[in-house]
Amino acid sequence: MHKNKLVVVGVGHVGSYVLADAMKTGLFAEIGVIDILENVAYGEALDQAQATALTYMNNVNVRSGGYEQCADADVIVIAAGPSVLPDPDNPKGEPDRTLLTKTNSAVIREVMAGIVKYTTTAIVILITNPLDTMVYIAENEFGYPQGRVFGTGTMLDSARLRRLLADSYDIDPKSVSGYMMGEHGSTAFPVLSHVSVGGIPFGELASYLQPRQDISDPETVKTRIISAAYDVLNGKGWTNAGVAQSAVTMARAVLLDERSIYPASTTLRGEYGHDGDVALSMPCVIGREGILKRLPVTLDPWESSKLGESIAFIQAAMRDAKTGPARIAEPA
Amino acid sequence: MHKNKLVVVGVGHVGSYVLADAMKTGLFAEIGVIDILENVAYGEALDQAQATALTYMNNVNVRSGGYEQCADADVIVIAAGPSVLPDPDNPKGEPDRTLLTKTNSAVIREVMAGIVKYTTTAIVILITNPLDTMVYIAENEFGYPQGRVFGTGTMLDSARLRRLLADSYDIDPKSVSGYMMGEHGSTAFPVLSHVSVGGIPFGELASYLQPRQDISDPETVKTRIISAAYDVLNGKGWTNAGVAQSAVTMARAVLLDERSIYPASTTLRGEYGHDGDVALSMPCVIGREGILKRLPVTLDPWESSKLGESIAFIQAAMRDAKTGPARIAEPA
Amino acid sequence: MHKNKLVVVGVGHVGSYVLADAMKTGLFAEIGVIDILENVAYGEALDQAQATALTYMNNVNVRSGGYEQCADADVIVIAAGPSVLPDPDNPKGEPDRTLLTKTNSAVIREVMAGIVKYTTTAIVILITNPLDTMVYIAENEFGYPQGRVFGTGTMLDSARLRRLLADSYDIDPKSVSGYMMGEHGSTAFPVLSHVSVGGIPFGELASYLQPRQDISDPETVKTRIISAAYDVLNGKGWTNAGVAQSAVTMARAVLLDERSIYPASTTLRGEYGHDGDVALSMPCVIGREGILKRLPVTLDPWESSKLGESIAFIQAAMRDAKTGPARIAEPA
Amino acid sequence: MHKNKLVVVGVGHVGSYVLADAMKTGLFAEIGVIDILENVAYGEALDQAQATALTYMNNVNVRSGGYEQCADADVIVIAAGPSVLPDPDNPKGEPDRTLLTKTNSAVIREVMAGIVKYTTTAIVILITNPLDTMVYIAENEFGYPQGRVFGTGTMLDSARLRRLLADSYDIDPKSVSGYMMGEHGSTAFPVLSHVSVGGIPFGELASYLQPRQDISDPETVKTRIISAAYDVLNGKGWTNAGVAQSAVTMARAVLLDERSIYPASTTLRGEYGHDGDVALSMPCVIGREGILKRLPVTLDPWESSKLGESIAFIQAAMRDAKTGPARIAEPA
Repeated sequence: MHKNKLVVVGVGHVGSYVLADAMKTGLFAEIGVIDILENVAYGEALDQAQATALTYMNNVNVRSGGYEQCADADVIVIAAGPSVLPDPDNPKGEPDRTLLTKTNSAVIREVMAGIVKYTTTAIVILITNPLDTMVYIAENEFGYPQGRVFGTGTMLDSARLRRLLADSYDIDPKSVSGYMMGEHGSTAFPVLSHVSVGGIPFGELASYLQPRQDISDPETVKTRIISAAYDVLNGKGWTNAGVAQSAVTMARAVLLDERSIYPASTTLRGEYGHDGDVALSMPCVIGREGILKRLPVTLDPWESSKLGESIAFIQAAMRDAKTGPARIAEPA
Repeated sequence: MHKNKLVVVGVGHVGSYVLADAMKTGLFAEIGVIDILENVAYGEALDQAQATALTYMNNVNVRSGGYEQCADADVIVIAAGPSVLPDPDNPKGEPDRTLLTKTNSAVIREVMAGIVKYTTTAIVILITNPLDTMVYIAENEFGYPQGRVFGTGTMLDSARLRRLLADSYDIDPKSVSGYMMGEHGSTAFPVLSHVSVGGIPFGELASYLQPRQDISDPETVKTRIISAAYDVLNGKGWTNAGVAQSAVTMARAVLLDERSIYPASTTLRGEYGHDGDVALSMPCVIGREGILKRLPVTLDPWESSKLGESIAFIQAAMRDAKTGPARIAEPA
Repeated sequence: MHKNKLVVVGVGHVGSYVLADAMKTGLFAEIGVIDILENVAYGEALDQAQATALTYMNNVNVRSGGYEQCADADVIVIAAGPSVLPDPDNPKGEPDRTLLTKTNSAVIREVMAGIVKYTTTAIVILITNPLDTMVYIAENEFGYPQGRVFGTGTMLDSARLRRLLADSYDIDPKSVSGYMMGEHGSTAFPVLSHVSVGGIPFGELASYLQPRQDISDPETVKTRIISAAYDVLNGKGWTNAGVAQSAVTMARAVLLDERSIYPASTTLRGEYGHDGDVALSMPCVIGREGILKRLPVTLDPWESSKLGESIAFIQAAMRDAKTGPARIAEPA
Repeated sequence: MHKNKLVVVGVGHVGSYVLADAMKTGLFAEIGVIDILENVAYGEALDQAQATALTYMNNVNVRSGGYEQCADADVIVIAAGPSVLPDPDNPKGEPDRTLLTKTNSAVIREVMAGIVKYTTTAIVILITNPLDTMVYIAENEFGYPQGRVFGTGTMLDSARLRRLLADSYDIDPKSVSGYMMGEHGSTAFPVLSHVSVGGIPFGELASYLQPRQDISDPETVKTRIISAAYDVLNGKGWTNAGVAQSAVTMARAVLLDERSIYPASTTLRGEYGHDGDVALSMPCVIGREGILKRLPVTLDPWESSKLGESIAFIQAAMRDAKTGPARIAEPA
């Protein structure tokens, strides 16, 4: 009989939160934990297993082990690779996300090689940065079925956008519809042409609600969101709560075949004039088979320009994935 | 020490579902149940109390009693009055929601008189039909503080709209943003000018997604939604799951001060050229103090025309609330 | 790819609550609804489908249809058959649960015949009364694999026991461990020899906590629990909240393979000196394959005597299942 | 209008998990975060605030700040002080929990001084180690109302006990009733005289279920549980998931006035021959006013002997709280 199973690869700051969130979904009968540090994987699984004996918890079978755990997995979340860190020389500045590229592209290649030994049907959700480059590698180098590998991408950046608007207008972010597109990182851009609050298009909001701060200019919005990411990174030293929950939210959409529209990172197949040469985030329909459909929304001139910058940035990182040196990176 | 408390007035088909849903929110320490049939209130409270002894449940203190239970209530949900019924002579037709007006306006006056003896601070959420007329009475005849009484209104009709669009495009209704406005009932109309799917305005959807059925015309959408309501009513004999959950969702927004934007029924205070002469549903910001703000969105000509029809319909029912005969009504 | 699927057969007072509870578990991607009244099944499924468009809900695919829906079901809950009713001639008395036997044994035979056409692997959970007789029929007449069919049995009676003790000592029923055994109905008996409160055996409680009422005598406890059941039945006209949640709690233990110990109704296979001649409730380990193990706890003399009475009562009902007339029955 | 509010003091490994778990309870409208590292508190609050913009989340108002946030708090969880660490010289050995005593007693005194400036009504739940000594200080040095300060104590050790038994018998830990008592740490002892599995006393289990490993001897059980704690600590470097969830489970029992029986650390007031000279864990009834009642269960000779050892150990730590040097400690 089938049992819903998740595997988490990499349980550092981010993966341990994915695990903790997943334990409480009530959705998984089994969770497998993999980490290059086997004792860390063991300790995380055991800590969570002990917590299942507390009130309200499900008796989730959580264990650590190797890639053989993927054989009957429904969903695999990859959070492996060194965690992002503030640049010690310039902690308030904007570190370049591509700095981790070389190191983590090796990590992802190793992880994907481990996975495909046991499954090519599980849905694989990547979190490791630089995210879009990691997605490109995982999606294109291992013959994994199309749509079954994708990245959390700008799912988190989009939450930050909605939180920014919610704070500005003193409302619930659940009442904000909208997303960021492009790279998961500093070149991500808000698609204000497709943002609405309580059904009211962004451009008409001023007639109804007064913002606490002027956010009418897209560059301002973009800057504030990147700044919000760095505020977390520089504050606590890493970012994990939001991105972990993004991954678990997507995993749920998969398991329940919700066909939810979420921004996800995926290799372009003809959208925006690109075919197979870059991966980035756009709204996608996500269900039991992974990405079921991509929605390349029409962008306004500013957004189009930013998309171009984002693509150029990601493609530079993709080149680093072959030759670039390992450096330090920016927040999730 | 404060304990979160809900009171449910009227536990027929609808109120019993409000109670059942509320028991599982994990939000209420105490729930009071009131019904004109005291034994029914007692039986409902006891059935739910017994269920708290099952795994995963909170030890909610659920009891039946009189209006004195409202004294320390945070939220009161009113589902009292005869349940809506299909017209036995014409079960497929459109019964007139105002048919219940006379009976239920007496009920609501009695219930509100009972409540104000003990509290004027609890947030009161009405479900009883014809909803907008009941809201008008409760909000204007008892000196209750403004914003603290409102109705679920087109919250349910809006869920039906999103479900219709979700089914048409085979996506998650959580990815649809939009609502119905006006009367809760047959004259409610979809505000397609403010609907979006995955951020894409309704009018541009055709470029991205093919619907299973043509829903480009607002009249068609309106007809299908009313038809969906009657399908439930004629199928099971009443409607309760959706409307009960609407009320509990609003109660949660209140308790947690979420400031969520939901359509709610409230007396107009200058919006759309009306001031104190009609109650109907428009998007509102809902938080700990009830309705914090109303958002009278700009309507297109078709929508404006439908709003006028809806207002005329509600005002006719409001007149019935003084003189009209009791008859049989339509679905929630 | 596998999707968690529940089928509910019979959506009257009880089945509609099973459906409503199951919708909110976050566990099922698909729910099928079957009822002999196809329009009722349709209306219930549609009402719930509309509710999925409200905040916080999963996009559950809920539909009505025939037994073909069972083909890929993980769990099937059977709540078909006429609902229990108070005896109109003696509403405060103890109606005989076996009165519904003849009618509902025909119903269960029809339902099981419908199910086995499509599956013999789904776990089948029965709620229909008289429960133990219905379990016996379903388990023994259709060649269904052993352990895969069982009844909610005294799961609800046990909740009532824990609620009674919790109320008596003013504590959380989650802190009470204990159950009723035997028939689901008037001959069910509390197994006080295996009850504990905060780890303290029932017999030693008096040293720690003063009850609000004397409950030291097992006959008194038994009487009060049966009385609590009738209080619900006579109050609201039926019982559904507790029993529906019992079934959904068991369904979750199955889906997540929790191996939880719950009282369940199952045909004896050597326990208590009976082999294949009666079904009744005892503690069982419940997991992905249904009942994994039965735990025939040692009973004290009073309990053994009550078990004998319960067995005699059930076996009389089992005889009615062949020849007895249809009559009116007692609460769930 | 009242809004449920939690304050978390100290957001290191443990406090950050308390925060993460609390965000998902659906119970809190507001959460305040305090840390001596203000930027860490700010970063944690912001990361969680961004996550509220994801699907299914409540719009919790989560912010960082000072002790003024406690003024209207319902519950305050204290996880401040240096995190427990494996002894670098002897990572597999048993570090002495009292090693952190001197440092953390200063921390707790500072935190409590900060709290009582703003409230003496909030329920305070301590996690900081050495736990019992910290509870003794907080409960006895600040005039805080009795019962309103307590520690998670052996709530976590008890979860480990139930997990151990659940694993041994291959069942759900929810079906195990039982707890550890005494010190939260190496001298905690299992109260097997009050353990049951599915209602069956520990001593009679062998007749029903075969354990995977022999666990009949209490010393063996005690050793395995302490070993399980070190397995987590030595594996991942700290323990947080279980203890954080313990605190949040207790906070929920408080907010909902559940009157749940959980082991909690509290100063003895006549129990076990001690009055005001030691704090340790025993089963307590926990509700809206904190600890409502203590249940000093009768211990068998082995348990009594272990209680004596535990008391001696805690009292030694209490002496260190005045004079002892700061050292490195053992797992939560």
